[in-house]
Amino acid sequence: MIKFEEQKQIDNVKGALMLRSQIEKAVDKIQKEGFDGIYFMGIGGTWASGMQVEVYMRGKSAIPVYVENAAEFITTGNKRFTDKSVVIFSSVTGNTVEMIDAVKKAKEIGAKVFGFIDVENSFLAKLCDICISYPMNEQLKFFMVANRLMYHNGEFPEYDEYNLEMEKFLPQALVEVEKEVDQWAADYAKEKYRYCKEHPDMPHYFIGAGNHWGATYSYAMCYWEEQLWIRTKSITSAEFFHGMLEIIEAETPVTLFIGEDEQRPLSERVASFLSKVCKNYTVIDTKDYKLEGIRPEFRSSISHLVMHAVNNRVDAHMEDEFKHPMVIRRYYRQFDY
Amino acid sequence: MIKFEEQKQIDNVKGALMLRSQIEKAVDKIQKEGFDGIYFMGIGGTWASGMQVEVYMRGKSAIPVYVENAAEFITTGNKRFTDKSVVIFSSVTGNTVEMIDAVKKAKEIGAKVFGFIDVENSFLAKLCDICISYPMNEQLKFFMVANRLMYHNGEFPEYDEYNLEMEKFLPQALVEVEKEVDQWAADYAKEKYRYCKEHPDMPHYFIGAGNHWGATYSYAMCYWEEQLWIRTKSITSAEFFHGMLEIIEAETPVTLFIGEDEQRPLSERVASFLSKVCKNYTVIDTKDYKLEGIRPEFRSSISHLVMHAVNNRVDAHMEDEFKHPMVIRRYYRQFDY
Repeated sequence: MIKFEEQKQIDNVKGALMLRSQIEKAVDKIQKEGFDGIYFMGIGGTWASGMQVEVYMRGKSAIPVYVENAAEFITTGNKRFTDKSVVIFSSVTGNTVEMIDAVKKAKEIGAKVFGFIDVENSFLAKLCDICISYPMNEQLKFFMVANRLMYHNGEFPEYDEYNLEMEKFLPQALVEVEKEVDQWAADYAKEKYRYCKEHPDMPHYFIGAGNHWGATYSYAMCYWEEQLWIRTKSITSAEFFHGMLEIIEAETPVTLFIGEDEQRPLSERVASFLSKVCKNYTVIDTKDYKLEGIRPEFRSSISHLVMHAVNNRVDAHMEDEFKHPMVIRRYYRQFDY
Repeated sequence: MIKFEEQKQIDNVKGALMLRSQIEKAVDKIQKEGFDGIYFMGIGGTWASGMQVEVYMRGKSAIPVYVENAAEFITTGNKRFTDKSVVIFSSVTGNTVEMIDAVKKAKEIGAKVFGFIDVENSFLAKLCDICISYPMNEQLKFFMVANRLMYHNGEFPEYDEYNLEMEKFLPQALVEVEKEVDQWAADYAKEKYRYCKEHPDMPHYFIGAGNHWGATYSYAMCYWEEQLWIRTKSITSAEFFHGMLEIIEAETPVTLFIGEDEQRPLSERVASFLSKVCKNYTVIDTKDYKLEGIRPEFRSSISHLVMHAVNNRVDAHMEDEFKHPMVIRRYYRQFDY
């Protein structure tokens, strides 16, 4: 398998799960000091991860949790954001300009800032009240914060057994998904290469819902558009039926992500519709993966990680098929704009 | 001018502005009875209008105002939504299935429901605690609600003079925009027809920010995709720089909407970037329109209506150029799905 290091990936997820004691300490401090709102703040992919954790909590928790886009926070602002508010963010480099300005503004207002920054000692890290440095696993980190917040609010009684189960089984379960899906992903990438060469202008459509939506949006934009330079459009399963459906024809290329949270029926409805009008669509349903050791009722909270594991394999093969190294950028950070 | 009836359009906007006494009565009642949250609820275009009013209020008002997508409310729900919450929505037909289910759920929880429904005596109208029936002007109605809420909260001291000015000048100012832009819109539509025939697969990119974003999203999806069957992708000006920029080349077709609210600089940044990498882009800047009688500081609250007026002319000419009646649907409400 190309670009796959089983033990390293297992260790990486294990390490992220082992952040739990640090995350609990941070959340417990936030809880103890009180807050009027938790703002997951980001831009691009990190904003999308914020959307994932917000919708994860929305139906389960009465805690005031919001998603803020850093660039909107800098310009429009938010009059409900106060010195009792808490910003939670994640940043790989710690030097995204919108994030620096947004965090500065939050600090000026007097809010508390809790950052996950991959790179230690970045400028952004110095602005944080609490900072945890560990590479990757952004969504997992956010969901761990969410789980602790809900635990404190009496909304997650299974918290301890949940964590023991994840710590024991999740790292292996995710690499098993990658191994199982690898050949399928290779075929998918080959087919996409063929299709794109024949239809260079055609966007590829991605559809998803619930805690998969942020990932669907950022997968389309931050992977295919930004890293592979392939046109995409993404839409939520619910919104699909209020406009976008009309441009789907038999040959339109669509990938539908079906997760396992409360919004699953919205995506199932899209699958049913697509089967009637399209023959160039792919369904990736996280329910198809076993996830050894993880009980059914806990799957909805991690099905987006299963999708991420599938897409890891897709990315590896897309990069290879298209002969397009995913690290190169046409414009981003190449010149001033 | 095709599909343009000056006096009828003036009267229609005047009539909407004259709803003020009814809207004030409704909002005053909501205010008096108290609430823990105002939820603008919708799906598709009506959800997008909710996004517009939420961001309009976000920087100015401490009132807890949220946007809820009806389909997500039915499935995921919202644990912060209570019997002290208020739903505000707009519906043309009053029979959109997701809206009916969402309003039913809100009523079961015990919330108050305030609907604007174009069609009187629809099923949805019967579920409302307060219902105002008047055709079109959805965004204007929502903003009138917002203005009254902010007035009560001490956040809109110029409320009275603002309304007098709008009632006196807005209806005429908007038709003047349409008259001024008509020839330009005819040329734009002709060029789009030519381009689409040569590049049938290529999506048209729409970019916008702030209180124009919801309109940008719904214009792309509910007009070009749904009513004209033309591929589009829409993105916010802020998010554009975090992925989508990479697929812009010299010939990529882009339309950028620049409004006049706090997020204007985000869109100006896109304009500056586009000028360096693209030569097939169009900027529609609401600042180019005079809006006789309306003072500069009030323009940001209505610049999305100016953009709407421009797009009215674009739509009229697109329908004519493409010989595609905008009322026809391939799938929507044509069969069960």
